[in-house]
Formats: sequence, structure tokens, C-alpha cells
Amino acid sequence: MGIDKYKVTSGNKFLLKNYETTPGKNPMYDKKERADILKKNKDEIRVLQSRLYADGKAGVLIVLQGMDGGGKDSVIRNVIGVNPQGVKVHNFRQPSTRELNHDYLWRVIPVLPQRGMISIFNRSYYEDVLVVKVHELYRKLNILDRCKDDGTIKRRYKQIKNFEEYLWENGVITVKLFLHLSKEEQCKRFLRRIDREDKNWKFSDSDLKERGYWDNYQEAYETAIAATSTPENPWWILPADKKEYTHVVASEVILETLKALNPQYPVVTKEQRQTLIKNREILTGKNA
Amino acid sequence: MGIDKYKVTSGNKFLLKNYETTPGKNPMYDKKERADILKKNKDEIRVLQSRLYADGKAGVLIVLQGMDGGGKDSVIRNVIGVNPQGVKVHNFRQPSTRELNHDYLWRVIPVLPQRGMISIFNRSYYEDVLVVKVHELYRKLNILDRCKDDGTIKRRYKQIKNFEEYLWENGVITVKLFLHLSKEEQCKRFLRRIDREDKNWKFSDSDLKERGYWDNYQEAYETAIAATSTPENPWWILPADKKEYTHVVASEVILETLKALNPQYPVVTKEQRQTLIKNREILTGKNA
Repeated sequence: MGIDKYKVTSGNKFLLKNYETTPGKNPMYDKKERADILKKNKDEIRVLQSRLYADGKAGVLIVLQGMDGGGKDSVIRNVIGVNPQGVKVHNFRQPSTRELNHDYLWRVIPVLPQRGMISIFNRSYYEDVLVVKVHELYRKLNILDRCKDDGTIKRRYKQIKNFEEYLWENGVITVKLFLHLSKEEQCKRFLRRIDREDKNWKFSDSDLKERGYWDNYQEAYETAIAATSTPENPWWILPADKKEYTHVVASEVILETLKALNPQYPVVTKEQRQTLIKNREILTGKNA
Repeated sequence: MGIDKYKVTSGNKFLLKNYETTPGKNPMYDKKERADILKKNKDEIRVLQSRLYADGKAGVLIVLQGMDGGGKDSVIRNVIGVNPQGVKVHNFRQPSTRELNHDYLWRVIPVLPQRGMISIFNRSYYEDVLVVKVHELYRKLNILDRCKDDGTIKRRYKQIKNFEEYLWENGVITVKLFLHLSKEEQCKRFLRRIDREDKNWKFSDSDLKERGYWDNYQEAYETAIAATSTPENPWWILPADKKEYTHVVASEVILETLKALNPQYPVVTKEQRQTLIKNREILTGKNA
């Protein structure tokens, strides 16, 4: 209930069109209260992140995916504003030649969160079943024929599912957020990027070219989300047309995930307690 | 059938005791011819490695596992003596604190072979189901309870199988060599390491301590090999008591793998040929 309406735990009958890109007629949060809830949630996230760090038992991986203009940067800036010591953001842009000479997870694994940390992937290995699928980029690789045949993308869904299962079984919790944007809202945001000088750097010709493949991308997202949603590693389909709403829902999802993990400050043993007391005496007593 | 008697492609009824640690009564190669065959094989491997490098379509991962004294270093030195530009050796010793704070494949993936290259793992991620299983080291990790329960090792077999399937599907061919040593031969080799000054550095007290767990290690190897042998990613059980024999069999396995891959020097197109001819003219003509 509540945010669970945005949660996908199985590919069974999953269709993107059944999910809204706007807050809809019955939004979960009133326009007026959104800012307050977001602030409250961020405070709680901050405390939980600190406990996650001290506890050091689990890593958290936040995967952000969505069309250009979906608001990925803005979610990172506005929702996950915690102590940078515990959080690392990684942008997955076009792979380098060196990266292309390796398997596609090769560039991903080194930047996975160590236990106690949060890693945010701004785009991710999912690009290898999104842009790579839409433009069939895998066919251009210098690789064995059997590795780039018609079954390639289908195999990757399975590989990614196995990979995320591996992560879950090894203490890395993956939170997959899809910023579900309408084509109309993307148009508005692109126009803003063109009209506002301080936004110009965010726009390139290729963005418009990719917009031409809108339907292909929607199909690629839909299939990928259906193929990789599980109870342990669900996808979250966040309405992305209204940023304030997106942010508050994203904050709820992250908060819920951290609460479920329930990280704790390490318990001090009796012996450690006595050492602490001794240290206290030294600091306050004659040896200070 | 030739070396196939040492090949395991399924865990079905796999028992280590059905495999010899010695060349046995009907060795595949006469004592006299072993050196010659090894030399011939190494020459062929060298040519194929050069083609693998030029072709750049597939990576080869050679995993070497076996008890202490099994001869892993010696296989690397004597069998895989190719151009170092195309080969990288990685030793997986006790993981560092930083490595222990990550999932166990974290330290492995960055050193996977890029296409065209051969990576040799001297020990590998299999240690995480061998020494880690024998001493239940996973229980000592600061990790979520559900990630270090009784099912941990069993889950890792599945994870490793999935991982190697992923590699195979992405153009990395894994060659898994188990150096099958007898307990008696290990004793002899340890004594040699103690008696010969130039070998002393290879021996430590802990080697003898681990020898005390011989049966546990044999069981761990047997279960791991059974759980991770597939037609695409078989294990090879190499008799390791006689090094000369081990080397020639290892060379046959590697040679067969490379032959099956059949890497080719890139084909020169008509246009490239004409450019080459032009360049030849420049080099030999008046512009030289």
C-alpha cells in the first residue's frame, strides 16, 4: 500500500502504460505537504545512512534510469543529500574503447558499494539492454559471432538478473528507480534547456536524435523492467513529470529500503565499555 | 579418448577418487616423448596466442587450482610461456581488508582478460568455496546474517556457475585446471622445500597446518568441481604427481581450447590491400 503501487516485483503482465507519469488524480501527497515530507524523509535517510556506515554490514546500490530529461541528476541532488563520505555517484556514459574490449559488467563491478556505503549509478549496466538494444550496438563489437547473435539481449536480461541476485545474496541491496516521463514533458524540458543559458550545456543534438527513437526506448525499458523485476530486486516506476512529486516518492522508496535493512550502531561489549570508562578517566583525571 | 578422460563436463557422479594423481598404468605419453610433445605444443600455443591477440574477439581465462605443492607456479612457468604482452598472471592470496569489505568477485572482475588476452589466475574466486568453506571464514564477515548462514557456500556454487556462464556468453573462455596431487607427493615436495635453501621461501608453517585439513580440502574440491562443471566451462583433473606429465597434459588442454577458438589474423579488405600497396610504393620508391 502507499508507494507499493509503484513497485514491480515480477514481470508478469507488466506494461509501462499502466503506470502514470504524473501524480494522477489521487496523488499520494498533497502539493502543499510535499516539501515538508521530503525534508522529513531526508532527515531520516541521513540518520539511517550514518547507521549503515557505522554498521558496515550491507551496501546499497541505487540505480537511476530514465529517458533524457527524466530528472536523474535532480533526484541525486535533491533526494540523496547525505554525507558524501558514505555515498559515491558514478555516471555511466558511452563506454570507452578499453571498456568495450571487456565484458559489459567489467566497468561496473569496481565501483560497486563496499559494505556500509551507498553507490548511486546515474545510468548503469542497464544501458547495455537499452541504447545498446535500440541501436543494436552489440552487433558492432569485435567479438565471437555467437556472442552477438539475435539472442544477445535476451541473454543479458538473464545475466543481469543473476548478477543482481548475486549482489543481494552478498549483502548489496539494489534499488532500481525508473523515472517514468511523458513524451510531452520531455519536450518541455528540452525547450527549457535550449532557452535557458545555464541549461544549454545539458542539451546536445543527439538528445533530439534519440527522442526520435522514443517508442523503441519505451519498449526496451518495458521489456528490461519486466525481465529483471524480482521480490528481492524490484523496479520502482516513479512518475517523473512533476519533479516535486518524483522527489518525495523517491525519498519514500529509499527510506523504506534503509528502514527494512535496519542498520544499527555496533553494540559495545562489556569489555569495550570498561575500556571506554578507563579512557574517560584518563581524559578527565590526572593523566589528561 | 585422449585428454578427454581428464575432462569433467557435469557434476553427475563426479568423484575425485576416480581420477588418478599419477600418469597411471597406461600413460598417454611415453616418458621419452613428453619433453618433445611439450615443446611442440608450446610452439603451437605461441602461434595461436599471437592470433588470439591480433583477432581480439575472445578472452581466455586460465584458472589454476590445487593443494599447496600441486605445481601451479610450475605450470605457469613451463607451459604458458608466451609473449608476456598477451598474458597476465594474477595471484589471489588472502584477501585484503578492503577486498573483504566487498562481495568476493569484486577483486576478480577488474583483472579479467580483455578480448585478445589471456589471464592466468593462480588460485582464484574458487578459494571462496575452498579455504573459506574449510575454515568457515564467511561466518567471520561483518555482513547481514542471511548472507552468512548455512546456505552460503551452496549459493556460491550457483553464483560461480552463473558468473562463468556470463563470461562464456560474453566471449571469455574459462579453462579450469585442477592439479590433482596425492598426499604422499605433497609430503615429498614439502620436504624438498625444507631441505633446499632456494626453496625455503616457498614453505611456511601454515602449509603444514593446512595439510592437516587434507580430507576437508579434498571434499571441498570435489563438491566445487561437481557443482561448477558444464559443457561450456568444464574442469580438467590433471594428474599432478609427475610434473613432466602434468605439463604435457596441461599444454594439450590449453592447445585444444585455443584451437577450438580458432582465432584468425584480421582479414585485409581490398581497400586496405590497396593502401598497403601504396605504402609499399612509398617505402620503396622515390619518397622513401
